[in-house]
Amino acid sequence: MNIPESNKKRIVIIGGGFAGLHLAKGLKGSSFQIVMLDKNNFHTFQPLLYQVATAGLEPDSIAYPLRKLFKGSMDFYFRLAEVQEVVPDQNLLRTNIGDLNYDYLIVATGTTTNFFGNKELEENSMSMKSVSEALDLRSLLLQNFEKALLTSSIQEREALMSIAIVGAGPTGVELAGALAELKKHVLPSDYPDLEVDRMQVQLIEMSDRVLPPMSNSASKKALKYLQELGVEVILGEAVESYSDHTIDLRSKKKLYAGMLIWAAGVRGNLLNGISESSSERSRYKVDRYHKIEGYDNIMAIGDIGVMKTELFPDGLPMLAPVANQQGSHLASLFKKGMDTSKLSPFEYKDKGVMATVGRNRAVADLNQLKFGGLMAWLVWMFVHLLSLVGFRNRLITFFNWSYNYFNFDKGIRLIIRKYER
Amino acid sequence: MNIPESNKKRIVIIGGGFAGLHLAKGLKGSSFQIVMLDKNNFHTFQPLLYQVATAGLEPDSIAYPLRKLFKGSMDFYFRLAEVQEVVPDQNLLRTNIGDLNYDYLIVATGTTTNFFGNKELEENSMSMKSVSEALDLRSLLLQNFEKALLTSSIQEREALMSIAIVGAGPTGVELAGALAELKKHVLPSDYPDLEVDRMQVQLIEMSDRVLPPMSNSASKKALKYLQELGVEVILGEAVESYSDHTIDLRSKKKLYAGMLIWAAGVRGNLLNGISESSSERSRYKVDRYHKIEGYDNIMAIGDIGVMKTELFPDGLPMLAPVANQQGSHLASLFKKGMDTSKLSPFEYKDKGVMATVGRNRAVADLNQLKFGGLMAWLVWMFVHLLSLVGFRNRLITFFNWSYNYFNFDKGIRLIIRKYER
Repeated sequence: MNIPESNKKRIVIIGGGFAGLHLAKGLKGSSFQIVMLDKNNFHTFQPLLYQVATAGLEPDSIAYPLRKLFKGSMDFYFRLAEVQEVVPDQNLLRTNIGDLNYDYLIVATGTTTNFFGNKELEENSMSMKSVSEALDLRSLLLQNFEKALLTSSIQEREALMSIAIVGAGPTGVELAGALAELKKHVLPSDYPDLEVDRMQVQLIEMSDRVLPPMSNSASKKALKYLQELGVEVILGEAVESYSDHTIDLRSKKKLYAGMLIWAAGVRGNLLNGISESSSERSRYKVDRYHKIEGYDNIMAIGDIGVMKTELFPDGLPMLAPVANQQGSHLASLFKKGMDTSKLSPFEYKDKGVMATVGRNRAVADLNQLKFGGLMAWLVWMFVHLLSLVGFRNRLITFFNWSYNYFNFDKGIRLIIRKYER
Repeated sequence: MNIPESNKKRIVIIGGGFAGLHLAKGLKGSSFQIVMLDKNNFHTFQPLLYQVATAGLEPDSIAYPLRKLFKGSMDFYFRLAEVQEVVPDQNLLRTNIGDLNYDYLIVATGTTTNFFGNKELEENSMSMKSVSEALDLRSLLLQNFEKALLTSSIQEREALMSIAIVGAGPTGVELAGALAELKKHVLPSDYPDLEVDRMQVQLIEMSDRVLPPMSNSASKKALKYLQELGVEVILGEAVESYSDHTIDLRSKKKLYAGMLIWAAGVRGNLLNGISESSSERSRYKVDRYHKIEGYDNIMAIGDIGVMKTELFPDGLPMLAPVANQQGSHLASLFKKGMDTSKLSPFEYKDKGVMATVGRNRAVADLNQLKFGGLMAWLVWMFVHLLSLVGFRNRLITFFNWSYNYFNFDKGIRLIIRKYER
């Protein structure tokens, strides 16, 4: 892999998401050699993937080149690689570009879509965990509209235009809101020869409310916003199968949609070679200093780890702020020579959760403060804009949002690569 | 294809490039039914593709959704389609989405890369005629640098970093300039563990000067600029084959490069079913009213047509302004009921030619006025910015250019989809 050997201890970080990024940044100027591996050469700002999928933002403004982040850092090495296996006994990592020894291994591999073993659903539905997947989604959405023009069957046309989303967590809710806005403001003028009002945006959730991780008042407000936008919210219902535009629900009811978007669960990107007993429901059990159970020099941060605290006995939520804070905390620990007596155990500073539902509307649970509407929407935008990595990305996103807002438009309706199943 | 029949005559335009776009815009409010077919749902601003390939602009800011352009137009139909055949006797077009009758057929299909029958070159080299191809080029450029990190052979590393461009027309020259700037300002800080100064940017041209269609003084200036930027310009030389990073030149000399970009020729996208006798070196012979030789209701505009005039006895140059003016002229002709006595034959208003070579440097031949340097560069930027379709695209491009200029940076170094041969 051509990483020079040095006297310094080597920390290998797998993954340049929120957790890996904050760790690496926190380690700048430390006395370690840092190697970061990722299968992409960029960091993805996942919270805005849904806007890429719905033609509101270009992919390039939510992605940031990892190499650029570490410009001028001494003894920092980035490699585009896929990890194949860890050999903990030998402190060795095997990858598609060769082997690498580590002194400390940090697993920050995040999660991937979980279809819970349903192969048919996995094959026939779309997910949205990466930039490429978001672009595929955008392409298929537009391709289906182009196809809808060609059929003379009203049923088929309606199905091709319609979209079902499974899972009403923040991703599902934000996506449903954005699709409903496309239906309202953009698609009718693009497709004057289609009856776009026949397009259905269906949001299917197994539990009895939308945004289950948020407060009851947030769920109620979000439901109201979604319904006002024309989203058909179906609660207490699960999807059993999907093929030929037909969705079979557990209740034996059927729905019709040309695209099913699966946002109903994730599972950790576990590594081969790490003992199964160290994980719990596909995520690594970690202590308050991020160590994976059963290992001394292998840590996990971000969504891939389950860390239980007094306030969160079932584990911390899978959120960007948790990942950020864990990355920074682990960096501090390294800088203190891994001496846990010098650093208090990790504690999540909960700044709250937000979700946006179309223009001017969002819900926010910020500790005791629960609010919605325009104010929440403005806070949501402000927080997301500031969290984006890179000045260029922030400015272009700000400009796009302003443009889209004042023009009731989403400008990036391009099928640059056709989606082919 | 589900296009409604009406009493109006139907004009079918194949291609939404510069020519097709100007024709369709010129026909707004006319008494014809307009159908536009394109294999993409967007217009591509080809003159800036090279900036997409070199990480300076996002693809989304040089592409514009065709449907959006015709928002609110009456009796205008866009279809995403690939044309398979014309049956002139029946005024019929066969496409992958069904058949369509026309009263007038306008061929505005442009050109594609011409490898002059060399299959090996076609397979092993990159071309840059579409947004997808420009993105592939960007990916391969960055992938090769990532690969270069992994080899311990200096020769292999140097080859992987190096790029050869065949053809020193405006595309080749502009691309070489942009790559030389990447080498100078961006890649060394991204790849501190590579000797980026070993990267070679080689520009190979068969004739004895760069920018052969421009004036001698422009050629000389451009050559000087390229050499100052460190581009190795090889004149009077042709490429015979390319494989395993080795380029065989006609003189039996060899060059080494991890990527060969072919910008040495184009051929028209001819249609099946139109007589071969109507074309000349893969482009349609057209009269001054755009009619293809031998047909009464089939016209060709833009690069696909060869129109000979007194000033241009070998045919008008293949340039965006020619396509724009032809589209508008043909629209006028339709609006005058195809009565050629009411409209003078097409005359190209030559506004000159420009090419840019890196920051602060360009060459311009504007009629009698031939100049270079900073002034030409500013004019180049101004003209290209104003020619971009759409306010959003103009503003984002302007912002990116300013950002890149002041930061000596090109921010979009993303491998969003790996290029795999």
